[in-house]
Amino acid sequence: MESIRRRVHEIIFEADTALGRAFDIFILVLITLSVGLVMAESLTPYNGALQHYFYYAEWGFTIIFTLEYGLRLWSVNKPWTYAKSFYGIVDLLAIVPTYLSLLFPGAHHLILIRALRALRLFRIFKMLEYVDGANMLLRALWRSRHRIAVFGFAIVIIITIVGALMYVIEGEEHGFYNIPYAMYWALVTITTVGYGDVIPQTAAGKMLASLVMLLGYAIIAVPTGIITAEVMDEIIQGRNSTNTQHCQNCGAIGHLDDARYCRKCGASLDVEHDPQRELL
Amino acid sequence: MESIRRRVHEIIFEADTALGRAFDIFILVLITLSVGLVMAESLTPYNGALQHYFYYAEWGFTIIFTLEYGLRLWSVNKPWTYAKSFYGIVDLLAIVPTYLSLLFPGAHHLILIRALRALRLFRIFKMLEYVDGANMLLRALWRSRHRIAVFGFAIVIIITIVGALMYVIEGEEHGFYNIPYAMYWALVTITTVGYGDVIPQTAAGKMLASLVMLLGYAIIAVPTGIITAEVMDEIIQGRNSTNTQHCQNCGAIGHLDDARYCRKCGASLDVEHDPQRELL
Amino acid sequence: MESIRRRVHEIIFEADTALGRAFDIFILVLITLSVGLVMAESLTPYNGALQHYFYYAEWGFTIIFTLEYGLRLWSVNKPWTYAKSFYGIVDLLAIVPTYLSLLFPGAHHLILIRALRALRLFRIFKMLEYVDGANMLLRALWRSRHRIAVFGFAIVIIITIVGALMYVIEGEEHGFYNIPYAMYWALVTITTVGYGDVIPQTAAGKMLASLVMLLGYAIIAVPTGIITAEVMDEIIQGRNSTNTQHCQNCGAIGHLDDARYCRKCGASLDVEHDPQRELL
Amino acid sequence: MESIRRRVHEIIFEADTALGRAFDIFILVLITLSVGLVMAESLTPYNGALQHYFYYAEWGFTIIFTLEYGLRLWSVNKPWTYAKSFYGIVDLLAIVPTYLSLLFPGAHHLILIRALRALRLFRIFKMLEYVDGANMLLRALWRSRHRIAVFGFAIVIIITIVGALMYVIEGEEHGFYNIPYAMYWALVTITTVGYGDVIPQTAAGKMLASLVMLLGYAIIAVPTGIITAEVMDEIIQGRNSTNTQHCQNCGAIGHLDDARYCRKCGASLDVEHDPQRELL
Repeated sequence: MESIRRRVHEIIFEADTALGRAFDIFILVLITLSVGLVMAESLTPYNGALQHYFYYAEWGFTIIFTLEYGLRLWSVNKPWTYAKSFYGIVDLLAIVPTYLSLLFPGAHHLILIRALRALRLFRIFKMLEYVDGANMLLRALWRSRHRIAVFGFAIVIIITIVGALMYVIEGEEHGFYNIPYAMYWALVTITTVGYGDVIPQTAAGKMLASLVMLLGYAIIAVPTGIITAEVMDEIIQGRNSTNTQHCQNCGAIGHLDDARYCRKCGASLDVEHDPQRELL
Repeated sequence: MESIRRRVHEIIFEADTALGRAFDIFILVLITLSVGLVMAESLTPYNGALQHYFYYAEWGFTIIFTLEYGLRLWSVNKPWTYAKSFYGIVDLLAIVPTYLSLLFPGAHHLILIRALRALRLFRIFKMLEYVDGANMLLRALWRSRHRIAVFGFAIVIIITIVGALMYVIEGEEHGFYNIPYAMYWALVTITTVGYGDVIPQTAAGKMLASLVMLLGYAIIAVPTGIITAEVMDEIIQGRNSTNTQHCQNCGAIGHLDDARYCRKCGASLDVEHDPQRELL
Repeated sequence: MESIRRRVHEIIFEADTALGRAFDIFILVLITLSVGLVMAESLTPYNGALQHYFYYAEWGFTIIFTLEYGLRLWSVNKPWTYAKSFYGIVDLLAIVPTYLSLLFPGAHHLILIRALRALRLFRIFKMLEYVDGANMLLRALWRSRHRIAVFGFAIVIIITIVGALMYVIEGEEHGFYNIPYAMYWALVTITTVGYGDVIPQTAAGKMLASLVMLLGYAIIAVPTGIITAEVMDEIIQGRNSTNTQHCQNCGAIGHLDDARYCRKCGASLDVEHDPQRELL
Repeated sequence: MESIRRRVHEIIFEADTALGRAFDIFILVLITLSVGLVMAESLTPYNGALQHYFYYAEWGFTIIFTLEYGLRLWSVNKPWTYAKSFYGIVDLLAIVPTYLSLLFPGAHHLILIRALRALRLFRIFKMLEYVDGANMLLRALWRSRHRIAVFGFAIVIIITIVGALMYVIEGEEHGFYNIPYAMYWALVTITTVGYGDVIPQTAAGKMLASLVMLLGYAIIAVPTGIITAEVMDEIIQGRNSTNTQHCQNCGAIGHLDDARYCRKCGASLDVEHDPQRELL
């Protein structure tokens, strides 16, 4: 029994054996088919003959994915750790909407969240440069989280105040029906999306809009500056250190070549054989 | 009397004691309620039964905030320094609109400026990494102020000339009613907001618009470059120095570990116990 | 015969001799005329007297370019290597649409792909700084391909999920006719283009749109950060090395001044006399 | 006579003496009034009583500026060098439109180009940090001119090909009336302006538009990367060198402290007393 469990673990969690790789490719094909199916369904008219086939196919995919999720939980050593990991949550979210659709008919469209499972793609095909690229981006984003959060908070406050000002200046007769709606306009303007569904009509409103645009133009530079600086830093560090291992847990670098555990937090550095710990 | 004053100061300006912290959280809750109330009010129809409650609640909040502002002025050592500080101005602006609304009925929506008071959030919960992130961003913005100002001046001149050209080319019959309006169009285009409410109709106008877009595409890079370079510089400097203290007054770094005053400008480095000096 | 072939090769592939240069300029003029012609044709009414002239002129240009392509294939040492190179493919694509137009009348507009041939411009006029600038950009883009690909994959997944959510929230009655269309809206929003042809109508839809805009605002910084870091890296490396030669094949630098082959991959560093190897 | 000429030169070209400064401020006030006047004129209805006053005021300003331009030409040592310099051309362009308006009535709006003369502002008030900031930006832009030009060329070629494809796919019935117009759409999309006046209607058109948006999203990073890298480089260089003088002519740095002429090109480094040579 234990050997079967270990064998199942090898097949569904790793992509080193021929069978394990075949299983991963099989799941990837199913994900692609399933995502394509939901898109195709939304393109066809309701109550057509095709709708029946879509319905059965979707339940088919969901049952296979449910079985797979059960096998993953059963075969892994620490089921709870897997269930809380990024992929564990994605694997669960990928099957929930179909069951939910028994209660809320529209919910089954949300199985498009299955697309997230396709991120495993990089691991299956051993595209290590891509995993490396992704990890570098995630580390850079993670390290800049404090600054990004402060920036986001500042944006929310700016939008609140600009929205209130615009609501007072333009008022409901010019399409700024309430303060949340005026805040929505402020966000559409400051992010330079500019749908054009609500626009200031008065001279004062246009002057405020001009200020908001100039402000948006200036502060769009701030997140870019933060991310660039971190990515640049990653590249410089990566070039200077001979050992390129980064701790998946705390991001520490500068490990010795034979190190298997992070010298800062003790987490395993052995990425290949420890799939649940991977960020991507 | 003096000891009461000192005690009040400790409660409302600092968040180190249990009572001080409770006071800050109480004010934060009031701010959130007050901001939510104004938004909710703009969503409900006029003259409804709810409007009365909104009216009384708003005056309630304003009276509490006025009392708090008075206590702050009374308890602080240098009332004028506090009144001129960033938070002093915000605390005043947060109560003025309600009183103004006695004269101008629409003004009370502007109490959304109270949202700015929520910036104290970071200090209350000792989120030092965030205060650090914010200070770093403010320092980077401050150091690039000359270049940003020159850039802003250049944008204004470009918009003036492009607006005049567009007014001559397109004229009033195509929606470019006057030069300020054509300048507004130029700003909407150069910042890539692109509402689409006024658009060039003639071939010559479209060619000028194309040039403006290409220009906007190129020069959006300039503020980004300025900010990125400064943020990058901050990160490199921060990594090379062992002492990470930055002077709040002049931005100097490289202080000794036991330094309590800036080696460049003599301002106190003791951020925690000097709340009025904080930028954020 | 062999000497004629070598002479032809010198004239059409190189721009060092007077005749070779004259040939290149002649082809450049033909390209410009041909591109201008197709644009002019689309501006004139159908079945007019001018259409005949356009038709004959286009066939004239196509026959000249076909002859030139044949001469190139004949005179070059390794025809297959040329045919597979960037310019070989462009030279072929520049003549195919006219022949295709015998089957599909609209196809001949695609000869605007001839514009790509104008890239030879930089080589003809020995604008080495520009070739250098272009190669630097291409190297920076090439080195960031893994990270850009991961980022692109993440964008596609985000758009899929946001599109599905929006389709469920807004539905067909508000213009989100199907999931691919809702994904198109998500892309228009996240890239800050914001046409404004479909916009969320419900409060929930506007909140999701706000989140998407903030997300777009934040992640627009990621590709910028990646490219900037690589360009910056190029500039720093270029300044530190005395020999500025970069291998066209693998991008290695740090070659000795008399090096003619890459010390890393053995590819020829002799750009001037090896035109087929050029990236631009 | 010669001493009068020298005195006039001192007054109108320099801002070191009280009279020279007064003259500069007087001209600055005239520029501001004149620019405000043209804007105000475009806001008032035609043939009103005010139009007469606008007409006389404009001729008054133009005559003063013409006299000033004549005095500048007369008093400067090398009139031709001044006339060809940035400010020489701006000073001329600032008076030409009024004379042109005798032939073309609409031309007089173009005197808004006078706004460019306000750039002298920075010099008058000795705002050296701003002049420095501006020079740094201009140097960074100048040094990245090759890469920016290559990038601009690439954008033009991309727009041509995308425009042709879109014209074939969507055609005249969907608003893509001709290839130049489809190219205009491509530019509006790739720069993320997104007016929304022409939008693809077919599925194929929307897919091409999606690709163009993703491309625009990726390549908006390129100019940003180029400029950032150069600005960053300026900051690092500026910090490492003790002498911060940069040659106005060729951008060389690393001059000795007592250097008065550029060690690379021999141009004067003496910015203060050599106003015609200034870039800004």
